[in-house]
Amino acid sequence: MNERACVLGIDIGGTNLRVALADLSGKILIRTSSTTTNVRDPHFVVANICECADQLLQEVSFTRKAIAAIGVGAPGVTNAETGVVIATSYLMGWRDVPLKSMLEDTMGVPTAVDNDVNLAALGESFFGAASGTPNFVFLAVGTGVGAGIILKGELFQGTAWTAGEIGYMLVPGVSERPAEPGQPGPLESLAGGEGLRLQWLSLWDPAQTALSQNLTATQIFDGAVAGDALANSLLDRAAYTLACAICNVTLILNAPLFVLGGSVGLHPALRDRTQSAVDAHARRLRPRIVLSSLGSDAQLMGAIRLAQLITQR
Amino acid sequence: MNERACVLGIDIGGTNLRVALADLSGKILIRTSSTTTNVRDPHFVVANICECADQLLQEVSFTRKAIAAIGVGAPGVTNAETGVVIATSYLMGWRDVPLKSMLEDTMGVPTAVDNDVNLAALGESFFGAASGTPNFVFLAVGTGVGAGIILKGELFQGTAWTAGEIGYMLVPGVSERPAEPGQPGPLESLAGGEGLRLQWLSLWDPAQTALSQNLTATQIFDGAVAGDALANSLLDRAAYTLACAICNVTLILNAPLFVLGGSVGLHPALRDRTQSAVDAHARRLRPRIVLSSLGSDAQLMGAIRLAQLITQR
Repeated sequence: MNERACVLGIDIGGTNLRVALADLSGKILIRTSSTTTNVRDPHFVVANICECADQLLQEVSFTRKAIAAIGVGAPGVTNAETGVVIATSYLMGWRDVPLKSMLEDTMGVPTAVDNDVNLAALGESFFGAASGTPNFVFLAVGTGVGAGIILKGELFQGTAWTAGEIGYMLVPGVSERPAEPGQPGPLESLAGGEGLRLQWLSLWDPAQTALSQNLTATQIFDGAVAGDALANSLLDRAAYTLACAICNVTLILNAPLFVLGGSVGLHPALRDRTQSAVDAHARRLRPRIVLSSLGSDAQLMGAIRLAQLITQR
Repeated sequence: MNERACVLGIDIGGTNLRVALADLSGKILIRTSSTTTNVRDPHFVVANICECADQLLQEVSFTRKAIAAIGVGAPGVTNAETGVVIATSYLMGWRDVPLKSMLEDTMGVPTAVDNDVNLAALGESFFGAASGTPNFVFLAVGTGVGAGIILKGELFQGTAWTAGEIGYMLVPGVSERPAEPGQPGPLESLAGGEGLRLQWLSLWDPAQTALSQNLTATQIFDGAVAGDALANSLLDRAAYTLACAICNVTLILNAPLFVLGGSVGLHPALRDRTQSAVDAHARRLRPRIVLSSLGSDAQLMGAIRLAQLITQR
């Protein structure tokens, strides 16, 4: 293998670490994953990444010199210039972790870091559903709701690296009380996975539904599609709330395309109902909503793209 | 006067045409204005512009050759690449007017055209309240409500040149019925000049207010400051509605600064109450709201800046 002939893409999630070796065109050669559930300390995460990388290299008989660049997605606010992860959710609990320099020091390879939802947008932009669309928004609906924004073909991260925090958006029907720290934002209370789970718990009534009291958002949507009225009302409300957010983002950015991803966002029923609600409201602009084509690999492919961009500088 | 030693800035408004000759640093040398109330036809407007320009040139003893570039603000959706005004409000009634080439053909000078609110943002960005702030939003509150967006120091106009149409934003408290064509949007119904005038008309009751039934938005705000309870409720609602819009834009774009302008937006009481409402909601982000420092000249100064940019290419 030639020196600097491949790139390493890394997706650090709340529960999984995904690592892939790709050729310079972005095609994955080999991949592995590991759990992050009990590995929160940044030094352990970096050690875990290096272990995974070395294991992949060994399997294809490469050395570290084969890696031209590393791209990493981190689950939190990230300064993409310095590669410092400013803050992650309480689960990881990271504050000001210099992930880029930690990896560069250990691996000896140029590294770039960005927020995971931003990287999912970058992945869809280059390898996925938004290829060829210079302005679009990736909507990640998982535990919470966030967005990655591509403008003029490039990631837009904002002045303090927090652009796309739409889980806190104020739309009709949300609670207007300011959200408490650590609690879901107004919009994600109605349209995010954790918010939907909590809503179902509080609205659940055996007289109104035959479904279990403990359901995930995806199971609630499945129930809605199967004809359960209570589940249907939650799906409708989530879709309407998301549609309001999409209308607002379209008005501001005039972006014609939204790519829906994340564990909850990949449910086709959510896409279909959200598109219908958007069409009823945004008659002139009519943004198109499509499902992520990279699915749970969107972040990883974005990390590979980020590494590619280093090699093309 | 040397050849190509000055630029011409033009602001085409719904009621006024403003024309100014500035030196290459953007300092206005001489200016004039004219009415557009009965001059809707694009050919008449162009003739009117040329007349104003020639009059200014004559007064300072220049010829047309002294003009290095022309920048023009148009009151409607404008393709800034081709210089075609795609659509203006029903008042002007323009559709696909090739304003750039019409002016270039007549004046023989390189010309650039953009939407007037975008140019107000450009003016504040370079000459005004947002100087030195790469990401910010200019909020124009006049008859309606619109925004000009500066990202990474440049205007962001969107895929179909309609970015910043926040008069249609869906926030808590607005009507959720899709707006009819030609009617104020949901947000500007509560926070725009025409919306406020209509609200006052419908809520006016001599038992509740000593003020006249026919008031402009600015007069309603003056009444609120003077202690009128009904006027006060309208000002509070406008400020709260605008604050929701600002929170939403901040969440999406992570822009730290909003410059408030337009005939209604320049009222200090609106700024003060909007800032208070924003501070109560967006505790972490706390965007700052300041009054336009260029006032009614923001668009004109933006047009001068647009012309300057041509000379610096």
